[in-house]
Amino acid sequence: MLEAAERLGRLLAEAGYTVLCGGGSGIMERVCRGTVQAGGTTVGILPGERREEANPWIDIAVPTGMSSARNRIVALSGLAVVAVGGRFGTLSEIAFALDAGRPVCSLGGWTGIPGVVEVSSPEEALEFVDRVIRTGGNAQG
Amino acid sequence: MLEAAERLGRLLAEAGYTVLCGGGSGIMERVCRGTVQAGGTTVGILPGERREEANPWIDIAVPTGMSSARNRIVALSGLAVVAVGGRFGTLSEIAFALDAGRPVCSLGGWTGIPGVVEVSSPEEALEFVDRVIRTGGNAQG
Amino acid sequence: MLEAAERLGRLLAEAGYTVLCGGGSGIMERVCRGTVQAGGTTVGILPGERREEANPWIDIAVPTGMSSARNRIVALSGLAVVAVGGRFGTLSEIAFALDAGRPVCSLGGWTGIPGVVEVSSPEEALEFVDRVIRTGGNAQG
Amino acid sequence: MLEAAERLGRLLAEAGYTVLCGGGSGIMERVCRGTVQAGGTTVGILPGERREEANPWIDIAVPTGMSSARNRIVALSGLAVVAVGGRFGTLSEIAFALDAGRPVCSLGGWTGIPGVVEVSSPEEALEFVDRVIRTGGNAQG
Repeated sequence: MLEAAERLGRLLAEAGYTVLCGGGSGIMERVCRGTVQAGGTTVGILPGERREEANPWIDIAVPTGMSSARNRIVALSGLAVVAVGGRFGTLSEIAFALDAGRPVCSLGGWTGIPGVVEVSSPEEALEFVDRVIRTGGNAQG
Repeated sequence: MLEAAERLGRLLAEAGYTVLCGGGSGIMERVCRGTVQAGGTTVGILPGERREEANPWIDIAVPTGMSSARNRIVALSGLAVVAVGGRFGTLSEIAFALDAGRPVCSLGGWTGIPGVVEVSSPEEALEFVDRVIRTGGNAQG
Repeated sequence: MLEAAERLGRLLAEAGYTVLCGGGSGIMERVCRGTVQAGGTTVGILPGERREEANPWIDIAVPTGMSSARNRIVALSGLAVVAVGGRFGTLSEIAFALDAGRPVCSLGGWTGIPGVVEVSSPEEALEFVDRVIRTGGNAQG
Repeated sequence: MLEAAERLGRLLAEAGYTVLCGGGSGIMERVCRGTVQAGGTTVGILPGERREEANPWIDIAVPTGMSSARNRIVALSGLAVVAVGGRFGTLSEIAFALDAGRPVCSLGGWTGIPGVVEVSSPEEALEFVDRVIRTGGNAQG
């Protein structure tokens, strides 16, 4: 999953997208590393109050000081949302994204949630994002 | 579902519990009506800035002014969480409750989420809540 | 100041008001103690994620998990706001209350802020609150 | 004030700083315009749920959907905070910045708040910011 995350970051950067995420370690960090190493820009919406908590690949750190309530901001900030992995924080982001009408695809995590498009590789996730952008925010088809 | 919601409120009040919810209309309002008519107390964590937005059965209104980011507060506030119905706001509350280690049961809505106990009636939901309280916050067994 | 805080709680409870605050220690705890000992009800909007963090005089605990961003919720929740003491958290509550059109008086703390009515005793603070309630939310006169 | 705001943006950009603000119109928009026209980058922490609400000079839009509770995020995000203008939203940002130990200067607005350095021109504000950065976050001296 971590390798897929990094490849996803690289693909998004090469396609010219800015990557915004929760700014933490693990999957988030690997996505950011891929993004930055491919020349892209990363934004981290942090749970804590200090910029220093961002992973080392974050270009612009936004400390919210509101713990995982910041998940909704992450969900609202994307034109398209790629949910990577399967923990409860990710689930809250999926819920908020769908609630706000943001298109969501899921890679390697949550399945069976109505409205979420399941993809099986970073390449498919990129296709999903491209389709959302091309069609002005509707990639459910 | 609305009738079950109202019965749930009545059962919780009769058992001596305070009911805290999002303070809105629909299912939330019916739970509150059942609670108040049975002599219980209701707290509404409102999405907007004005107390007047609470449904008429809210005793204590807490306007958050932060829209559905208040869902996390609703999820954190209960010793036990009963998720009634199946929209995305409810899903975000389930996610936040599980993320924070709060026991969650689901009535008439989301199914198949690991960690959520599915119940099929207000009476079963009350049993779930009772079990959580008796065992000090662990009703997964 | 702590003694004045406790007397303020007692006066508010005797007048039939519910007292809502940040739920912490120090001044907040003394206000709550006065309230409860006079038979009133207290609500605590907590900065953390756990109800156990509330001071022992809180009847209804609402853990927000969003640190001092919860100050805005405290400011929005009152029909009238009594700012006791003079730290920066209190200043943020004053700012949010004024921004939302809530009448604010200050006891023993911030002075010189346009729109804030300065009072010099718990009795005067109670008069301010009474006036706000009687006039439907306008006590600047 | 609007002209000073735009000059401030230009000065900050020329000095190599990224400018983060609430992303709205008025003073915020003029700061952003100055920044972008001088080749700098702007980040807008928006009160609403939609990126389209950002002023036209925002490069990276972060919709929070939490209304002016986002003021705390704005206050936390800067290494140094320049408060321009004198409304209550600005006052809440000053309060949160001081509460979190962020150095704050005020230009053309709030005066008399302990801990806030008053400056009288964009040039002085830039000097303040430079001093904060050089000394690692302490510009009260």
